[in-house]
Amino acid sequence: MWPSKIKHCRECGTAVEHRLPGDGDTKVRAICPRCGTIHYENPLNVVGTVPFWGPQGEQVLLCKRNIEPRWGKWTLPAGFMELGESTAQGAVRETQEEAGADIEILDLFTVLNVVRVGQVHLYYRARLLSDVFQPGHETQEARLFREEDIPWEDLAFRTVRETLRCYFADRRKGQFGVHTGDIS
Amino acid sequence: MWPSKIKHCRECGTAVEHRLPGDGDTKVRAICPRCGTIHYENPLNVVGTVPFWGPQGEQVLLCKRNIEPRWGKWTLPAGFMELGESTAQGAVRETQEEAGADIEILDLFTVLNVVRVGQVHLYYRARLLSDVFQPGHETQEARLFREEDIPWEDLAFRTVRETLRCYFADRRKGQFGVHTGDIS
Ligand SMILES: [Zn+2]
Ligand SMILES: [Zn+2]
Repeated sequence: MWPSKIKHCRECGTAVEHRLPGDGDTKVRAICPRCGTIHYENPLNVVGTVPFWGPQGEQVLLCKRNIEPRWGKWTLPAGFMELGESTAQGAVRETQEEAGADIEILDLFTVLNVVRVGQVHLYYRARLLSDVFQPGHETQEARLFREEDIPWEDLAFRTVRETLRCYFADRRKGQFGVHTGDIS
Repeated sequence: MWPSKIKHCRECGTAVEHRLPGDGDTKVRAICPRCGTIHYENPLNVVGTVPFWGPQGEQVLLCKRNIEPRWGKWTLPAGFMELGESTAQGAVRETQEEAGADIEILDLFTVLNVVRVGQVHLYYRARLLSDVFQPGHETQEARLFREEDIPWEDLAFRTVRETLRCYFADRRKGQFGVHTGDIS
C-alpha cells in the first residue's frame, strides 16, 4: 500500500525484493537477496518554531518560501530534523537558516501527524530576541504579522495553519498548551 | 561525525560518495555519482504507551522483553513508528503486538529525544480495558506493577524510566501534562 523508495541494497547494491522478512514482522520490507539486509522505511520529523515578538507576543514571524514545494507561499520556519540534534535543536537551526532570526526556544507547542506523506510536524514556541532578520537562500522575505494580517489563504502547509490557529487561540486564553492532531 | 549507513544507491545500486550536495545544504550526504540521488538519513520515532489499570490508575503494564537489545529487561510497550500510521496509531499497534492489551488511547505524555542513537520517543497515556493480556513473541511476560513494585533497576531503556517517573509524579499531583526532555 505504501510504495517503497528502495530498489537496491544500501549495503551491496543488489536489487532488493519486497516481501515479508519471515521473522514475525507483518510488513513487507525491501530485503536484499544477496546479503539479507532488511531496509526499513519510516516517517520523518519536521521541526520548526512559532517565533513571536511584542510585549504580548502579538506578532509572529513568517517566511515567504523561495523553494519548491509551495514556492511563494508563507510558512513558519521548519524543516527536516537531522541526525545529531534534538527536536528543539533542529527547530532552532531551521529558524536560523530560513529566517536568520535569533530566538529563545520555549515549550513544545504542536505535534501534528501528516500520515499521507509519512511526516510528524513538531513546533515549538520561541521568543524573538530581535526583529531584524537575515533570511537564507530558501526564503524570499521574512517578516512579522499580526493575527489580522496573517495570509491564511497563502500559507504553505496545513500544519502551519493549524499551529498558527492554536497559537492565537491560546494567546487569547492567556495559556499555552501542547496540541496534538492529525492532518488528513 | 555521524557514520552513514548507506554504501550503495537505493535507485541504481552504484557505490555512493559522501560529500556536500552543493545545493546550499551544509551536511555531508550519501550521493550517487551515477544518477545523482541524494540519500538523507534522519532520526526515527519510537512510539508507545503507559497502559494503566485500577480506579486511580495505580498499576502500570510492563513487558519483559523476549528480544535483543535488553533481553529479559522490562519495558513499556513501544516500537518504531511505521509509514501509514500516526504516532497514536503506532502506539496502539505496539501495545497490541507486544502485550496483547486492549486500550483506550489518551493524551500524548512524553516526548524524549535520544540524540546519541538518532531517536525520538513519544509515549501516550492509555487506559487498559481489560487486565487479561496476550503477549506476542517479543514479550516473555506482561504484567501490572504498582509504583512500589516497579523494577527500576531492570528497566530496558532510560526513556521508559523517565516516562514512568513522570507518570507516578503527575499521578500524585492529580494532573497529567506533556513532558519533554533529552536523554543523554
Ligand atoms: Zn545486500
Ligand atoms: Zn544511483
